[in-house]
Amino acid sequence: MRRARVIAVIGAGFAPAAVAKLAYEVGREIARCGATLVNGGRFGVMEAAAAGARNRGGRTIGILPGYDRSAANRHIEFAIATGMGEARNAIIVASADAIIALAGEGGTLAEIGFAMKMNRPIVALQSWPEIPRLHRADTPAEAVALALRLAGSRRR
Amino acid sequence: MRRARVIAVIGAGFAPAAVAKLAYEVGREIARCGATLVNGGRFGVMEAAAAGARNRGGRTIGILPGYDRSAANRHIEFAIATGMGEARNAIIVASADAIIALAGEGGTLAEIGFAMKMNRPIVALQSWPEIPRLHRADTPAEAVALALRLAGSRRR
Amino acid sequence: MRRARVIAVIGAGFAPAAVAKLAYEVGREIARCGATLVNGGRFGVMEAAAAGARNRGGRTIGILPGYDRSAANRHIEFAIATGMGEARNAIIVASADAIIALAGEGGTLAEIGFAMKMNRPIVALQSWPEIPRLHRADTPAEAVALALRLAGSRRR
Amino acid sequence: MRRARVIAVIGAGFAPAAVAKLAYEVGREIARCGATLVNGGRFGVMEAAAAGARNRGGRTIGILPGYDRSAANRHIEFAIATGMGEARNAIIVASADAIIALAGEGGTLAEIGFAMKMNRPIVALQSWPEIPRLHRADTPAEAVALALRLAGSRRR
Repeated sequence: MRRARVIAVIGAGFAPAAVAKLAYEVGREIARCGATLVNGGRFGVMEAAAAGARNRGGRTIGILPGYDRSAANRHIEFAIATGMGEARNAIIVASADAIIALAGEGGTLAEIGFAMKMNRPIVALQSWPEIPRLHRADTPAEAVALALRLAGSRRR
Repeated sequence: MRRARVIAVIGAGFAPAAVAKLAYEVGREIARCGATLVNGGRFGVMEAAAAGARNRGGRTIGILPGYDRSAANRHIEFAIATGMGEARNAIIVASADAIIALAGEGGTLAEIGFAMKMNRPIVALQSWPEIPRLHRADTPAEAVALALRLAGSRRR
Repeated sequence: MRRARVIAVIGAGFAPAAVAKLAYEVGREIARCGATLVNGGRFGVMEAAAAGARNRGGRTIGILPGYDRSAANRHIEFAIATGMGEARNAIIVASADAIIALAGEGGTLAEIGFAMKMNRPIVALQSWPEIPRLHRADTPAEAVALALRLAGSRRR
Repeated sequence: MRRARVIAVIGAGFAPAAVAKLAYEVGREIARCGATLVNGGRFGVMEAAAAGARNRGGRTIGILPGYDRSAANRHIEFAIATGMGEARNAIIVASADAIIALAGEGGTLAEIGFAMKMNRPIVALQSWPEIPRLHRADTPAEAVALALRLAGSRRR
């Protein structure tokens, strides 16, 4: 069995409509490319990306903060209940081949920090201009293509 | 989307042939019943159960101790890299609707402890006679049927 | 600087008076021997042991389940906020040179499992007759003396 | 018992001499003010800050990545073995009343992200000009005074 590529989409738990739309399209594009989506399993960017991926028949994994799997949004196919609170960010990042970051706050910054530390490629989609060393994309399709290309250059 | 039932199979990372055969059959039975298998993603009981599940086209999730997904056995479809070492046992248990325990050592005992604490039903298959309050089964089919019945009586 | 020996005391978060008295005496004895007490930082056995240690001027470290340090009992000198829920048990065990187990439930069983897995010596004080491979003690003084002797035989 | 204030000092595991000197002085200042130092327990900024604190008789707690307490630097008085790898950053931050950040890389960025998310005040000492919303200090004494003042305005 070949394992599918896994792309993490990170961003805030509350997302304005424009950001949610972007996240939805990123999720759809990930599914269209045959990759699996992993994220924090909750709301905002997480829910929108999962909805997009499911809309195209893609796989979705949610890495939850608590011990209650029913706290996952309804587009999560596999809910992992970590009970680790914010520290679950390290698991999301480690479980992905590449990361796409949308606008977000402290939690997203922690995930970017972990991705740097763990040497996972990060693509910033219309966000985080202040952080150096991130790859940049302007559209969902461009972000996913870039993430998959960068993922391809490292061992799974 | 209805989420599938998730059954954890726990046991030692090194398994004698008779225990591995039992684990393989438990994995097959889980898949045959349409449930998803979750375990620690490594070898021994973990590998045998995943092989059995994949043989029947089932879903397999491995909750790994380190940050390296390539450390999963080859029958794991989705590899979650926790970086949490032994404490990942809590995640395996929390992510399942019911647990089936085969012969094991300290790690398995920790998982049984977590399952009691988190109120997840546990079925002991030919093992752990010294621990009170476990459900008992003699065959893989009986263990899976009992685990699914017990899982059914709690909210996902 | 030589680091002091660290002894973990584990047991339930709710303790009947007789068990709490035992835990208090174990804490006092740990302090009297110049060792540091580590435990889960909450109530029942954890609070009683910490009170005993502080009564003799000993050091107490509480490894808390949540992110809120003010949830520690008032006899905890250093409160570590793990945010890891039940999985903090692995940290309590790994941070000790030896473990003393009083009567307890699932959480205590998980800690015993981790101690076996991590090769930390465990002394059962009037408890857990059903678990094989534990060292046994009948009084607090005997339990602490045995724990310190076993701790001495491993590298810190 | 009143618990002492706890200040986390974060920064890279390898530090050039100028940064190490700054970290040493921050540690000394924390001890001089009667506060406890918490950090990652390893080398570079972590070791220098702990050495400074011990030089003034202060308390030092190291939150280690692995399960081996002997991996702590020799200025750590209490070594907590988390086994959580990079995710221990969340514990360091949660266990402090305020955070002082020196120059660092991905790990430090993750800690800043957690501090924002957990609402812990962060003082950047000659570092991280690109991150908004951090408090700024130019000298170790100024950083510690500011951290303690900010710590004072939140419940322990």
